[in-house]
Amino acid sequence: MINATYQAMLNGKSVIRMIGERASARRAQIGASEVFDFSLGNPSVPCAPEFTSTMIDLYETQAPYALHGYSPSVGIESVRGAIADSLNRRFGMDYTPAHIFPTAGATAALAHAFRAVAEPGSEIITFAPYFPEYQPYVAGTGATLTVVPADTAHFQIDFDAFERALNPRVAAVLINTPNNPSGAVYSEQTLRRLAQILEERGREWGHAIFLISDEPYREIVFGGAEQPYPARFYANTLTCYSFSKALSLPGERIGYVAVNPRAEHAELLVPMFAQISRTIGHNCPSSSMQLAVARVIDKTSDLGVYERNMELLYGALVRLGFTVEKPGGTFYIFPQSPNPDAMEFCEQAMEYDLFMVPSDSFGVPGHLRLSYCMETDHLERAIERLEQFMRERYGR
Amino acid sequence: MINATYQAMLNGKSVIRMIGERASARRAQIGASEVFDFSLGNPSVPCAPEFTSTMIDLYETQAPYALHGYSPSVGIESVRGAIADSLNRRFGMDYTPAHIFPTAGATAALAHAFRAVAEPGSEIITFAPYFPEYQPYVAGTGATLTVVPADTAHFQIDFDAFERALNPRVAAVLINTPNNPSGAVYSEQTLRRLAQILEERGREWGHAIFLISDEPYREIVFGGAEQPYPARFYANTLTCYSFSKALSLPGERIGYVAVNPRAEHAELLVPMFAQISRTIGHNCPSSSMQLAVARVIDKTSDLGVYERNMELLYGALVRLGFTVEKPGGTFYIFPQSPNPDAMEFCEQAMEYDLFMVPSDSFGVPGHLRLSYCMETDHLERAIERLEQFMRERYGR
Repeated sequence: MINATYQAMLNGKSVIRMIGERASARRAQIGASEVFDFSLGNPSVPCAPEFTSTMIDLYETQAPYALHGYSPSVGIESVRGAIADSLNRRFGMDYTPAHIFPTAGATAALAHAFRAVAEPGSEIITFAPYFPEYQPYVAGTGATLTVVPADTAHFQIDFDAFERALNPRVAAVLINTPNNPSGAVYSEQTLRRLAQILEERGREWGHAIFLISDEPYREIVFGGAEQPYPARFYANTLTCYSFSKALSLPGERIGYVAVNPRAEHAELLVPMFAQISRTIGHNCPSSSMQLAVARVIDKTSDLGVYERNMELLYGALVRLGFTVEKPGGTFYIFPQSPNPDAMEFCEQAMEYDLFMVPSDSFGVPGHLRLSYCMETDHLERAIERLEQFMRERYGR
Repeated sequence: MINATYQAMLNGKSVIRMIGERASARRAQIGASEVFDFSLGNPSVPCAPEFTSTMIDLYETQAPYALHGYSPSVGIESVRGAIADSLNRRFGMDYTPAHIFPTAGATAALAHAFRAVAEPGSEIITFAPYFPEYQPYVAGTGATLTVVPADTAHFQIDFDAFERALNPRVAAVLINTPNNPSGAVYSEQTLRRLAQILEERGREWGHAIFLISDEPYREIVFGGAEQPYPARFYANTLTCYSFSKALSLPGERIGYVAVNPRAEHAELLVPMFAQISRTIGHNCPSSSMQLAVARVIDKTSDLGVYERNMELLYGALVRLGFTVEKPGGTFYIFPQSPNPDAMEFCEQAMEYDLFMVPSDSFGVPGHLRLSYCMETDHLERAIERLEQFMRERYGR
């Protein structure tokens, strides 16, 4: 017998994957240069050169035991210290190594954070638009994911809708800022109001509501701005991070959970993460990868291309009459679909070898997610093709 | 609120960890050279030099996208092919890349295998002595682990006890050969009889009983022998492997599940593993690590030291009058404790700075697990100390 739940998941069709597969098939047919694929969220800049030189240095100079030995179940102490120091320096926090748990990317970070503060039957709230993988991530814990409808004007938080959704079964609130897919950066005002509500309700219900902050795009913020650090505003915050986007290492699966030292039971959470690891088969990220990111902790890849691309694409969408909020960060933009049926619009665009993702699986209808992870000259040609499509099919 | 289940796990005391911590504390006190630590299962030989040179070459020559880009959710195709080819060449199998699922070590391999073929409420059977971490691994799936008492004569399988334990709720049987902690290598005869029983019962109950074969020690077999490959004898076999021991890379978390092409639903299992990954936060092992092990797929570290150490330690134990089965592989030996209370014996030995693990958590009373992952000259001094201890405390 095979497991019925996982077998049934095979029938779930991911629209993002389906569109990605059609783009790949088309690339094989007509060549990559003629396919304009806005569906991919794969960093398009090379990894930071300091990362490569650090890794070569580690392999050339470190004893194999030091580089490849078992990591303690809570991660390598020096790595945890380097992460804590960096967060303290950058965001005025007071983490110690005991608050840091290295993980195999943000996905594993979330897997631990969810399980530590939710129970089967409890509720985790998130805000549309949201990363569709949050559904299986939460389903795997036995908790349920409740989605608060979007603030479609600015993609901050619709607090009235949020307050209506809150109830005593809510164990945690999950945010993702800068946001995939909207590109929105939650403001300090948004984060303060969110914190205030969570504090009030936590007091009222006699238990902490945890804030789980998924921050893989933290370092990709535009206009010289910074993402206000959510944990600064709310004690019960678990910060989930991946180096995937900042260092362009998505395949390497390296990130962490940082537990706010002021959180309830802060001293228990990292030891609990180690227990959770035993039950889900995690057992630490790669030891050499831990050591390498600790050495380049404040470096990033050359991320400027994402802002240049955003400006080009945003300008084009505005010229073409799209209703679109200017992204504050990430490498996504999330305009309204000119056709109320976003899937139909995407199907039409595919006839022009333009591949975009309809918004439905992100919890918002009638929008499109466009990724601009690509060389700028390819984006310029993609925009020309988009202009042709909109002229010929939508008279713009 | 924090999760009660994982919080309760914090109170579970691991004897292995407790002894390891006492050994570490003692090393800090009197220096590593005076502490004789038989408690550790950390490979003591350096990683294969071909692995290091391959990794440096990859970092120096590969495009960052190719090395660090997202891995497909079922792993990198070329890596899956290299693993399939190696298994086919070595063991006469007929795997294709579609049967191979790269994982973050054997722990993650087991996490996927268990979930794919068991359901909450179903049963997984294993044989004492067994690796104690199987308990949390299985608990995390909602299934239960049933332990068949040991064949303490030779640490093969007590088939009468096994047949009594079998029942229609059994979804899978879990074996670990070469075995941690006994060092036993299951013979072809053992594997054939096991397969025959599983086939008969599977037919009787109308559903396949899967064999999950945990094989991280496959390459550490003594006397020029080989571990017969379990999947050759039984169609419904999921082979779980880690490169940790063969290449001395325990911290790097790289392994795989191989699905026997003749298994029921063989074509569904790898896609189901990818779904399981989404719910437990796995999402593939490191991309560069996948590419590196594929290039050195049939290499190993210099593993000969384990056999030299085993011969020395086995000879000493026999001279000292221990009842002990000679290990066929691994880097463990599992003698009977001269004191029926194995924990008391280990406490006494610690007074001589000898650190051994009592067998109770492995599901067998009255034995000791000794690891001989150490430099041979250190082992020789450890044996002298053991002789002194046995002379002074046990009159031998």
